[in-house]
Amino acid sequence: MKWSIEKNILLEALNDVTRALTQRTTIPVLNGIVFEINKEGISLLASDSELSIKVNIKENNINYKEGEGKVIIQSKSFVEMIKKMPTDIINFEVEDDLKIKIYSETNQYRLNGYNPIDYPNINMEANEKVIILKASMLKEVINQTSYALSNQEVRPLLTGLNLKINGDILECIATDSYRLAKKNIRLDNIIEDSINIVIPGKSIVELEKILCDDEENVEMYIFKNKILFKYKNIFLQSNLLEGAYPETNHFIPSDFAYMINLNLQDFYDAVDRAALLAENKEKNIIKVHIEGKNMVITSASNELGNAEEKLIIDSNNKESLNISFSSKYMLDALKVIKEENIFLLLNTDDKPIIIKPVTDETLLELILPIKTY
Amino acid sequence: MKWSIEKNILLEALNDVTRALTQRTTIPVLNGIVFEINKEGISLLASDSELSIKVNIKENNINYKEGEGKVIIQSKSFVEMIKKMPTDIINFEVEDDLKIKIYSETNQYRLNGYNPIDYPNINMEANEKVIILKASMLKEVINQTSYALSNQEVRPLLTGLNLKINGDILECIATDSYRLAKKNIRLDNIIEDSINIVIPGKSIVELEKILCDDEENVEMYIFKNKILFKYKNIFLQSNLLEGAYPETNHFIPSDFAYMINLNLQDFYDAVDRAALLAENKEKNIIKVHIEGKNMVITSASNELGNAEEKLIIDSNNKESLNISFSSKYMLDALKVIKEENIFLLLNTDDKPIIIKPVTDETLLELILPIKTY
Repeated sequence: MKWSIEKNILLEALNDVTRALTQRTTIPVLNGIVFEINKEGISLLASDSELSIKVNIKENNINYKEGEGKVIIQSKSFVEMIKKMPTDIINFEVEDDLKIKIYSETNQYRLNGYNPIDYPNINMEANEKVIILKASMLKEVINQTSYALSNQEVRPLLTGLNLKINGDILECIATDSYRLAKKNIRLDNIIEDSINIVIPGKSIVELEKILCDDEENVEMYIFKNKILFKYKNIFLQSNLLEGAYPETNHFIPSDFAYMINLNLQDFYDAVDRAALLAENKEKNIIKVHIEGKNMVITSASNELGNAEEKLIIDSNNKESLNISFSSKYMLDALKVIKEENIFLLLNTDDKPIIIKPVTDETLLELILPIKTY
Repeated sequence: MKWSIEKNILLEALNDVTRALTQRTTIPVLNGIVFEINKEGISLLASDSELSIKVNIKENNINYKEGEGKVIIQSKSFVEMIKKMPTDIINFEVEDDLKIKIYSETNQYRLNGYNPIDYPNINMEANEKVIILKASMLKEVINQTSYALSNQEVRPLLTGLNLKINGDILECIATDSYRLAKKNIRLDNIIEDSINIVIPGKSIVELEKILCDDEENVEMYIFKNKILFKYKNIFLQSNLLEGAYPETNHFIPSDFAYMINLNLQDFYDAVDRAALLAENKEKNIIKVHIEGKNMVITSASNELGNAEEKLIIDSNNKESLNISFSSKYMLDALKVIKEENIFLLLNTDDKPIIIKPVTDETLLELILPIKTY
């Protein structure tokens, strides 16, 4: 088996498939990248057994190809080797003893391969129930919610993104139980069966990186225990997390004593500055005092000193309120909003804080306050 | 005491003085930056007690100034605070209780200060024996030698740069005992007393970062146990390492069996590629086989595979030679050469390897080979 391919085309494919690799695998062959040469072209596949990514390189993007079959190349330093090859066209040749020769006129690497029979069987066939979204939309949904995913394995379901479809509404929810992000979009078609699944955080974050901010279609296929995304020449398949995702709607208040309209950037900058002197470095707690048209944000560190920020606000309530929260959580929530103005919706100092873009009803973010006195 | 200053001017000064700070100090006040307000302007000073850096900001770069004296501001997050201030002009006010207020119209930080009486007395007065160099020259001398400094505290002297002056020749040497870099430059004047000192590695590396690649003069003043550099509005003073630096000249061969002329970039790239499959990750050992006009560089890793690189060379010797060395050390040595071609000067597989730019006699680099068979 032999093939020659342009460095850039190979690197682009590697950039996508290597996202499925993990350093922590206990199965040696999963450190490898599967190259399959067939009539249609060459496909690259990598998997950590939960997340699998395949890229097809079509015939017309291949300079030369001889033979058919599979070979598994160990991935350690492989991308670096390809990047550093001295020529634009790179030649591959599989030798009898599973060794893979990668070469140009003046240099060669001979790499130890893995035996293809040791590789798990990964089936990426689609079913007939396709759900279609624009890549830019799906990328935005993930971007605006995934920051709130939990990284604590104690409650595994919260490490995943909850994806629901009812009729033509797709809704995604992420929460680590201290904060929550919820985003919905309208699909072009009504989906017959309602869907309620949980996609592992790693899979969803890697999917976001693979998607470009473009208008290409992403085909989504949902199975009993896995989900498959098709985008351009890329296939991303992930297992699903098992169990019932907690119902979160009753945590979200519907009435608010305070409806405050704020300039996003001004508020972000003030919180960001105050955060530098917040006492608890993990939560970075800051205090907000609201009174009429004035908001004062303060923080204090015994060691360093204290900070005070003043903002003029537009509020519907003249009563004063003191409320404290994690500046880190607030900044994370503000970062994903693309509008100039936001609503900060408050009740009392122990009730959830809601953040919403002023004119976009599809995104809602929630942060629990922290009682400090 | 009050002053107002432009954010950019302050940040530029902070960028230089904070290089003297260390995270590891056991003297709390050395975490601070000394602001001294006097008739001439404002000076900033920081020190880790071995290295001290002072920047003078002249009157015409200060927007407002009232009172005279010293105040010490804790440096933790201080640069970030200044960067994030919402206005271009930043106001400072020292309060009675050693607190420093940093403020704009809409925000303020109140930072805990240190008591100036706790700060060590740092004398940065010059003497009459000035040695003058161009900044770009001094920067190059440091750049071309400092990579070879030892970071092992076992032999403290080798962590410093050996600076010698004899007549009008200034020579710098760095070695970690496995490799060596030696560079000399000609001074404009003959210096009467010969000089042989060792400057701590940290001081010399920070000096290199402060110097621009320009034709400004650097004034150098050498004392019994310290050295002072004056460059533009910056003063950098360092203690010297005590003891006699080892005499290294007799390690450097003067005759060579092989004098090989190589294109720097081709050789660098070949070594760099072979290094990816070198067995010992720390030393990254690669082998070179020379025979007539051919050089073959190889490396092998039990786990991953092996690499082979071919180069056509210009050598004065047809006898074959095998020699092994650390690819990391070779790449470090090649990185600081600015010419297109180098000489690789060899004898046998256990004798030092010398690397020199083809037309520049002022730089010499040495690497010890590694016996692998």
